[in-house]
Amino acid sequence: MPEKINSALKNKPIGIFDSGFGGLTVMSAVNKILPNENLIYFGDTAHVPYGSKSKDAVVKFSKDIASFLIKKDIKLLVIACNTASAFALSVLKKSVSIPVVGVIEPGAKAAVKNAKNGRIGIIGTEGTVASGSYFKAVKKISGAAVFQQACPLFVPLVEEGWNKGKIAQDIIGVYLKPLLAKNIDALILGCTHYPLLKELLSKATGANVELIDSANAAALEVKEILLKKDMLSDAKKKASLKFYVSDNPKKFQKIGGKFFLKKINGVKKINLERICEV
Amino acid sequence: MPEKINSALKNKPIGIFDSGFGGLTVMSAVNKILPNENLIYFGDTAHVPYGSKSKDAVVKFSKDIASFLIKKDIKLLVIACNTASAFALSVLKKSVSIPVVGVIEPGAKAAVKNAKNGRIGIIGTEGTVASGSYFKAVKKISGAAVFQQACPLFVPLVEEGWNKGKIAQDIIGVYLKPLLAKNIDALILGCTHYPLLKELLSKATGANVELIDSANAAALEVKEILLKKDMLSDAKKKASLKFYVSDNPKKFQKIGGKFFLKKINGVKKINLERICEV
Repeated sequence: MPEKINSALKNKPIGIFDSGFGGLTVMSAVNKILPNENLIYFGDTAHVPYGSKSKDAVVKFSKDIASFLIKKDIKLLVIACNTASAFALSVLKKSVSIPVVGVIEPGAKAAVKNAKNGRIGIIGTEGTVASGSYFKAVKKISGAAVFQQACPLFVPLVEEGWNKGKIAQDIIGVYLKPLLAKNIDALILGCTHYPLLKELLSKATGANVELIDSANAAALEVKEILLKKDMLSDAKKKASLKFYVSDNPKKFQKIGGKFFLKKINGVKKINLERICEV
Repeated sequence: MPEKINSALKNKPIGIFDSGFGGLTVMSAVNKILPNENLIYFGDTAHVPYGSKSKDAVVKFSKDIASFLIKKDIKLLVIACNTASAFALSVLKKSVSIPVVGVIEPGAKAAVKNAKNGRIGIIGTEGTVASGSYFKAVKKISGAAVFQQACPLFVPLVEEGWNKGKIAQDIIGVYLKPLLAKNIDALILGCTHYPLLKELLSKATGANVELIDSANAAALEVKEILLKKDMLSDAKKKASLKFYVSDNPKKFQKIGGKFFLKKINGVKKINLERICEV
């Protein structure tokens, strides 16, 4: 391949999507690990949260967003949402020609690697837990004992900014109790909001339980794939970061910074339903 | 009008909608006060919750649902959702020919009537509080002092079934503290989920604060309008209750009973986007 064309391919953006803000923790991890990569984010804030929606609905939303991002000429697609990874990864892998990375497999791999005694806990939304996708991903690659717990109050707790107080600690206590009773030695944070609860989660589990941040694990997987395919960006200029949402760009701009760990600007609203009619 | 035609008009159903389950507390109140009325409910579970969505999005969802219910030949439309009442009542009142009842004005009226010292507190979702709609509705009919508080954790707390424990009590304590410091003597439950927190809310406010259940107030308003227009059902047979949702009918059937206070059957899924394309 002539060097110029190859360079043009390398410098295409990576597309990342989630139901809302949460996936910004994944985008933040990708941006930290791969600072030269151009990134495009889509937050489906008209349908947020996915955790309580049906599989059919989440697959439909995911396909619509993937179409939108592929029209933006991305080189790789990251499903930065646990529920969408659980429900739509295999569908999207079949229907698009670029590599697709979810957050489930990388998180499962990291957990298996870190669970010294092979006892893994999983926390996530109702949808993620009910899908059993982390459970299956861990079982596929190891004989570890796996225990799951849905934690529907964690997302609103984080979004309310109550991720460090006494109430958060009590709620964490209730949800983790059955997992700790199983003597887990690794805990998968199976929702992109949960990295913001890391401090209290770590306090609740104690030093013997390794917290597995699937945002970080997914970002490492993206690097590995691009490296293997010789598709890492060789751009010298500062990477561009673009943000699209399906509702409420102002709110996204305001709250998103908390998840992205930097200020967010120029968020644009896209009408997905209009796109589908095309 | 010939008696037969009039009777046919009278026995048309009442349409009721909400973003999810919450409006079932309104449907339950209507069914209790008007047991002969046929009722059709629509829960927009593909977009739930509305509380964090933009005005434009909520107006669009509401219009789509109103079109669907009007095709079902309803005689009156109840917006059993505080956020949708705040954002879409005036739009729907202009665009449809049947009477439309929201939950805001009836709640505001009941609060003004019950606040002995004219100091009214309002609790609701972010969307309802930001819209200031209860505030404006109270101010329009009285000189009462009004204080608002958004309580984003209440909805997931109720949906998790934690509406009676210590954590709920603590969260209620945090949210009500600033309102109680203002010596309110009536508190509007500005979200259809909140009646399920009544017990703990009442414990937190004490006997001097009157709790205003807007679900009940809206049901009384429906009765008043139908009475005035001579459109109350004269059917002798048992009323029919129908349920439609935009996602997850099984989950709705399972959880809905908690809000409707009776078992729910035969929930049907409707694809609103497909309807819009017609």
